[in-house]
Amino acid sequence: MPTFKLTIAYDGTNYVGWQRQAAGTSIQGLLEQALAELNGGAVAVAGAGRTDAGVHALGQVASFSLQRAIEPGTLVRALNARLPADVRALSADSVAEDFHARFRASRKTYRYRICTADVLNPFERHYAWHVPGTLDVNAMDTAARSLEGRHDFAAFAAAGATIRTTERTVMRSRVTRTKLTVESALRGGDLIAYEITGEGFLRHMVRAIAGTLVEIGRGRRPGEQMREVLSSRDRGRAGPTAPARGLFLVGVEYRDL
Amino acid sequence: MPTFKLTIAYDGTNYVGWQRQAAGTSIQGLLEQALAELNGGAVAVAGAGRTDAGVHALGQVASFSLQRAIEPGTLVRALNARLPADVRALSADSVAEDFHARFRASRKTYRYRICTADVLNPFERHYAWHVPGTLDVNAMDTAARSLEGRHDFAAFAAAGATIRTTERTVMRSRVTRTKLTVESALRGGDLIAYEITGEGFLRHMVRAIAGTLVEIGRGRRPGEQMREVLSSRDRGRAGPTAPARGLFLVGVEYRDL
Repeated sequence: MPTFKLTIAYDGTNYVGWQRQAAGTSIQGLLEQALAELNGGAVAVAGAGRTDAGVHALGQVASFSLQRAIEPGTLVRALNARLPADVRALSADSVAEDFHARFRASRKTYRYRICTADVLNPFERHYAWHVPGTLDVNAMDTAARSLEGRHDFAAFAAAGATIRTTERTVMRSRVTRTKLTVESALRGGDLIAYEITGEGFLRHMVRAIAGTLVEIGRGRRPGEQMREVLSSRDRGRAGPTAPARGLFLVGVEYRDL
Repeated sequence: MPTFKLTIAYDGTNYVGWQRQAAGTSIQGLLEQALAELNGGAVAVAGAGRTDAGVHALGQVASFSLQRAIEPGTLVRALNARLPADVRALSADSVAEDFHARFRASRKTYRYRICTADVLNPFERHYAWHVPGTLDVNAMDTAARSLEGRHDFAAFAAAGATIRTTERTVMRSRVTRTKLTVESALRGGDLIAYEITGEGFLRHMVRAIAGTLVEIGRGRRPGEQMREVLSSRDRGRAGPTAPARGLFLVGVEYRDL
């Protein structure tokens, strides 16, 4: 059966997340519905990362097989004609039948956006965590970098998750100043981005790290504590889970396609 | 009575526009409601520019008088506590009682945003006109510049408007490439911005100019036609009115405050 790798972007604000749920509209559900129409029969779609409700994607990757061959450009146009404007197919590729968006992914990159202006720009309300005041970006960046490497990330895992191992490899973990989404009249205040690239992530891991980084940036705890939290493997030692709206799945990489 | 100049930003997507209407929620109506609560009595709010439904503002200016003095910073915080997140008070100033946001404005700047990518980034869906393909930015810029100066802009006025004069002075009218709102995975395609600064504007004037500029950018008419359209004073000669969602009121300037 012809198999496809689809790259999609979505604004997660109005969705229950990537994964199909009993109630509410999911990105996976929307795609499966649009593809079933094109395919003339049910299609199972696998996603590289299970983004939660309110989390956005600039480059989520999905895989699925269809009954008939279709030119990738035609597939993109046919999907966009059926999907709402806040979910867009960006590109499609024909891939081997054993391709799987999640199992074959070698790296994923997430970005967490924090706005420190006194007043939150209305155009940022769904796309950043509003943390008014001054954050020590250097301290945050040093703490973020201390997570690079292979570690047990249990301290940053969602409570109650039953998974085989909480060890993960993080290739890159950095905090930088970035740009606002819309050129804005906002005076003062930075947009700060935390970006992390890893082989795999635990549920809520990026948001738990972002919550801990903000406590460090505010000076509520010293930057060196990041390593202590990590080695404690205790979720109670990390900061709060940062809100979903600041998180973007930026992209997914595959070693051999 | 203590009089204030208030600078506000708003995402116009969910509103009927600046001006109070019989049905639907307006920005003016929201502000008057929030101020009436603070003031303990009705407040009339004047806005510098009457943005239409779906048009956004980065720096709209409003003026009003209250029964009691209030510290400007306190006023901003009290308003933001009462306004929805897509309408934000950015700053307030105490001004002379005869200040009026519209009559005293010396210049206003609008920006019109056009996205030429094949697939429209979902984060741009409410903030740009999607014109897939290639636009000749140089031809658009030359045509835009030919509007600078004092001219009769009747060719770009909304049909049926009854106004004293259609002469207006445009200080600056330029087309440039600009940045996307959210750092994006979108491949190819530019974001093009038309920016115009003038003493005053006719209803739909910026959108009618933007519609004409896009026809020039697409090569459907030569750039020199902009001057011919202008001198014709005939709305039928100009291009279509570009969609509201691409338009931003960037800021308002006042000579002496």
